[in-house]
Amino acid sequence: MRKIKCIVTYDGSRFSGYQIQPGQRTVQGELEKALAKIHKGSHTGVHASGRTDAGVHAIRQVFHFETSYQIPEEKWKKAINSLLPGDIYITSSEEVASSFHSRFDVKRKEYRYYVSNTVEPNVFWRNYVFHFAYQLNLESMQEACRHLEGTHDFTSFTSAKATTKGSKIRTIYHASCSERDGQIEFIFRGNGFLYNMVRIIIGTLLDIGQGRKKPEDIQSIIGKKDRKYAGETAPPQGLYLWKVIYEENDEEIPSKP
Amino acid sequence: MRKIKCIVTYDGSRFSGYQIQPGQRTVQGELEKALAKIHKGSHTGVHASGRTDAGVHAIRQVFHFETSYQIPEEKWKKAINSLLPGDIYITSSEEVASSFHSRFDVKRKEYRYYVSNTVEPNVFWRNYVFHFAYQLNLESMQEACRHLEGTHDFTSFTSAKATTKGSKIRTIYHASCSERDGQIEFIFRGNGFLYNMVRIIIGTLLDIGQGRKKPEDIQSIIGKKDRKYAGETAPPQGLYLWKVIYEENDEEIPSKP
Repeated sequence: MRKIKCIVTYDGSRFSGYQIQPGQRTVQGELEKALAKIHKGSHTGVHASGRTDAGVHAIRQVFHFETSYQIPEEKWKKAINSLLPGDIYITSSEEVASSFHSRFDVKRKEYRYYVSNTVEPNVFWRNYVFHFAYQLNLESMQEACRHLEGTHDFTSFTSAKATTKGSKIRTIYHASCSERDGQIEFIFRGNGFLYNMVRIIIGTLLDIGQGRKKPEDIQSIIGKKDRKYAGETAPPQGLYLWKVIYEENDEEIPSKP
Repeated sequence: MRKIKCIVTYDGSRFSGYQIQPGQRTVQGELEKALAKIHKGSHTGVHASGRTDAGVHAIRQVFHFETSYQIPEEKWKKAINSLLPGDIYITSSEEVASSFHSRFDVKRKEYRYYVSNTVEPNVFWRNYVFHFAYQLNLESMQEACRHLEGTHDFTSFTSAKATTKGSKIRTIYHASCSERDGQIEFIFRGNGFLYNMVRIIIGTLLDIGQGRKKPEDIQSIIGKKDRKYAGETAPPQGLYLWKVIYEENDEEIPSKP
């Protein structure tokens, strides 16, 4: 068996999330349907770097699958794309060592979140940016980002319903926000993110941007290890799984497509 | 009765066009549904500057309606928006003279069309830009645009199925194309546009950009007065009704939202 690694981008707005679910339109479901067609009806499971929720987008999600077919590694991209709907597109395919695993081998992930902080909403952005009309103080949110960086127990920043057992300690290498073209871009890079972690961080940063919490409150919220001290979970449409890093070849993707 | 004029923006991707049709989701249908709610169930017809087809967007479409309700002119915007779905948004409302008519009083219209001329498609643009992978010569298309300007019989550039009787003579005051951020922006301003006229012009310009026709062929195609000499009808998702001009207050809208 050969192992093929693909990078895939998807518009999450019309999917019930990444993970396959009976009767739902999912990214994994569409990928496995395309691979089954190529493999003459036989099931080929795909393994992604992790799930994304309904409405969440991906710029460079990674998945792998195993195959006995002798299609050249770079041709898988075209073969699968020809069978995918318009809201999923594979940007590269390559053969990898049999030891590679798209989930277990992740070194770091990057997520970005976009907020349009304008009075009027933009109908063309409604599925791609979170419209937040109240005025935000960018400097306060930047200061709060610095308190998020480092190795912490992020229990306060994950869904209380999360069933994940094990450590809630994660390292955020980079957290920042900046304004561009009327949109606020939040960037988070870390060695792993808990369920809903980025969206709860955003909800908390928006509280800080409005002056309802202080930047240094991030430290005490982390210390509480209790979901109820953090802000609300921000909606999915502003969130992008930006890239998944396996090695130290961390090239920059300059701008939002 | 008072007459209220509104400017409305909509994302056409999930509508079966502007005009109301039984059993279909349309922009006019959503506007009249909202107005019926405000008017306690009684029908209030809306009159737009013109129709847009399924998948076509509008930045500043104009419509009017008549009402006996004494809501202040600028409050209609908020009242109607609160009842509209997320893909339609009214950006202004004002009371106008009873003699005003949003269709009959139009002096000029502006349409824009966006083509992404890149090898790879972008999943986030699929409903908003026409992806055209073949290489295009921008200068040839710019030259062709100059042949479109002026007063011509545009019979060759309207659907052969068009049922419109009367003159097919229209004046194009401005036709241009330019490249920005990997997208080609086409701008057309005229005193009126026939059914499918912009999309057939775009199909013809793309032939010229590929070298399949010459820029000066525009003149002979116009002279033929026969739809079969022009190019194909370009798809709807790249097309935006950009603005509707009633007076000589032709302010610029700088960039695509």
